[in-house]
Amino acid sequence: MRDVYVIGAGMTHFGKFPEVSAIEHGAKAAWEAVKDANINPSDIQVAYCGNAMGGIMTGQECCIGQLMLRDAGIRGIPIMRIENACASGSSALHEAWLMVGSGIYEVAMAVGAEKLTSDDPVRSLSALAAATDLEAEGSMGATFPGIYAMVMSKHMELYGTTREQLARVAVKNYKHGSLNPRSQYRKQLTIEEVISSRIISYPLRRLDCCPIGDGAAAVVVASGDFAKSRDREGVLLAASALTTGMRDGLDDITSSDTTARAARQAYEMAGLGPEDIDVAEVHDCFTVAEIIHYEDLGFCPKGEGGRFMEEGRSSMGGAVVVNPSGGLLAKGHPVGATGIAQICELYWQLQGDAAQRQVEGAKVGLSLCQGGFFYGDCGSAVIHILKK
Amino acid sequence: MRDVYVIGAGMTHFGKFPEVSAIEHGAKAAWEAVKDANINPSDIQVAYCGNAMGGIMTGQECCIGQLMLRDAGIRGIPIMRIENACASGSSALHEAWLMVGSGIYEVAMAVGAEKLTSDDPVRSLSALAAATDLEAEGSMGATFPGIYAMVMSKHMELYGTTREQLARVAVKNYKHGSLNPRSQYRKQLTIEEVISSRIISYPLRRLDCCPIGDGAAAVVVASGDFAKSRDREGVLLAASALTTGMRDGLDDITSSDTTARAARQAYEMAGLGPEDIDVAEVHDCFTVAEIIHYEDLGFCPKGEGGRFMEEGRSSMGGAVVVNPSGGLLAKGHPVGATGIAQICELYWQLQGDAAQRQVEGAKVGLSLCQGGFFYGDCGSAVIHILKK
Repeated sequence: MRDVYVIGAGMTHFGKFPEVSAIEHGAKAAWEAVKDANINPSDIQVAYCGNAMGGIMTGQECCIGQLMLRDAGIRGIPIMRIENACASGSSALHEAWLMVGSGIYEVAMAVGAEKLTSDDPVRSLSALAAATDLEAEGSMGATFPGIYAMVMSKHMELYGTTREQLARVAVKNYKHGSLNPRSQYRKQLTIEEVISSRIISYPLRRLDCCPIGDGAAAVVVASGDFAKSRDREGVLLAASALTTGMRDGLDDITSSDTTARAARQAYEMAGLGPEDIDVAEVHDCFTVAEIIHYEDLGFCPKGEGGRFMEEGRSSMGGAVVVNPSGGLLAKGHPVGATGIAQICELYWQLQGDAAQRQVEGAKVGLSLCQGGFFYGDCGSAVIHILKK
Repeated sequence: MRDVYVIGAGMTHFGKFPEVSAIEHGAKAAWEAVKDANINPSDIQVAYCGNAMGGIMTGQECCIGQLMLRDAGIRGIPIMRIENACASGSSALHEAWLMVGSGIYEVAMAVGAEKLTSDDPVRSLSALAAATDLEAEGSMGATFPGIYAMVMSKHMELYGTTREQLARVAVKNYKHGSLNPRSQYRKQLTIEEVISSRIISYPLRRLDCCPIGDGAAAVVVASGDFAKSRDREGVLLAASALTTGMRDGLDDITSSDTTARAARQAYEMAGLGPEDIDVAEVHDCFTVAEIIHYEDLGFCPKGEGGRFMEEGRSSMGGAVVVNPSGGLLAKGHPVGATGIAQICELYWQLQGDAAQRQVEGAKVGLSLCQGGFFYGDCGSAVIHILKK
């Protein structure tokens, strides 16, 4: 595999936009990425579109990538939709990385878009439930909030993680989101507000959960030779690892073997360790998820995620600033867009373009996106490491 | 790119199976392909699942590949769903071919599965309509039968193609299907029966159209080194080409530029021409589609597809036997499975394993799968060439 660089990024404002289609969002992000990369749409040689729930949400289950890219002037080239539940966007980037890294193509695009708002909230919930094993988990009522409520209870029981420590994840990420013009939420929160927000699935409360929203993100990746030919330095995509669930038994629902395996692969590929990561965008679909990611990514030992948060080690000025964009909790989680939006944020951070939310001196960034429930066979984890 | 071999194939019976899920069909085909390849499930290093309409049809829009492969003992590896409308299965194979051909992996699986039958026929039609541009084509009522009825009228008008010539495509493919134990239909037809079947969209009649059905197919592809290590000779996958629509204007709806471009690429890659093809599995979603494919693939000059059929040049004993499996018309068209089922048929044909429907002396096979309407920007064509 040769070196692959991110040379352009584009992202829409995340939020609830009842009048805007996923196709419009996607076209906007793709066009912004093309402009940012200083290339022409016709320079793109292959494109992958991350979209997880277009069928249930909009009826347009097929060809959504072709339609959004056509509107950005990109057509004729191989275009496929990649679906891998909540990791659809990062899986699309994984494919784009493989295509350029293996030398098959010089320039590829990964675009992710999703529309989750609808006039019928049941439709949105059905779409999200489709990321579980419907027959096994769905029939038991094991929705994602239900599953993560169990994970949260267990982490508190096993490791003494406190309600306040968990709330601090939301407080931190909302604070970051308040500084991000593309974030779905721009307000700040207090610990008290998180803890007293309404119960969704005990002990999980409303502000422990990421919101429903719409949006899109896109990146252009290219070989070093191509980047040079366009005077683009870009950011090195030093590792891309994708794992799928394979765990038997029910021994520990507070850790993710998909994340742990993907992390090992990605660190090895990049020749780096957790201590080298300056900034990370991780899959904080619920507050407890971010705590577990600290542990599975090796930012702290198992069980110490709550303390790691409380001590400010993942906050601005800490050892590794986690979710400076606002994360899924505040910035939002339009499913297919999320994994690519994480890469946009790291690209901006590593180039010093993150304005008010800039992590000072950030040289190495890591993203983690998860698909499905990390415990099940249909779960997946995708990790990327970027380096300036 | 190094050589890639198909070393195993599996396929379910196609048909209407109200009690069987797409996941069950997919698991069965995947397991059959693993057994046929004489490998273990754990030998598979990466897998792509072609599925186009799982969200609308079953609610399980996400992770369907992981679920079917888990049931075949394949897990832990990168698994993604590839959606490219009716070309989803062949696009999944295209990715698998790229992964092995580029040297990233030694062994990959492409599996395709679809469930199109339902207790509500409207759901099946909505799912199929999702392969058009819903806003543009869908809102005009331009369903696939409507579109192909226009294409059929135009081909008859421009080239004098006769109603009888078109009917012969169905007669030929039903005859082949009657010899294929996995075919949805096993009966033979007469020209009269085709011409007098009920009108769907004038001049298109019921027996000009492929049926709705369920099923799955899977293939294992591997490097030459791996194949040798398992004493498998396999069949060379000599070319894989994927194109997406890029045509402006409405000058000619009786030819497909996606097919023509993919054919040029595939012939060049394989170092072969249309005259070298002994057997072909092409996308006969409607009788007229097969006629057009003869022309766009270079089997005959433009406008002469009807005559080519009438003269028996695509029938058993002809220059290139087209759709010996029964094609989409008789064997059936469970969308995500179709492109991979085509490869299963060619694999069996080139190894002399096609029993009663064997094309004598077949050495080179070609498959063509189309996604969306070939005329629109969201259309695509995928061509594979196999060689023994």
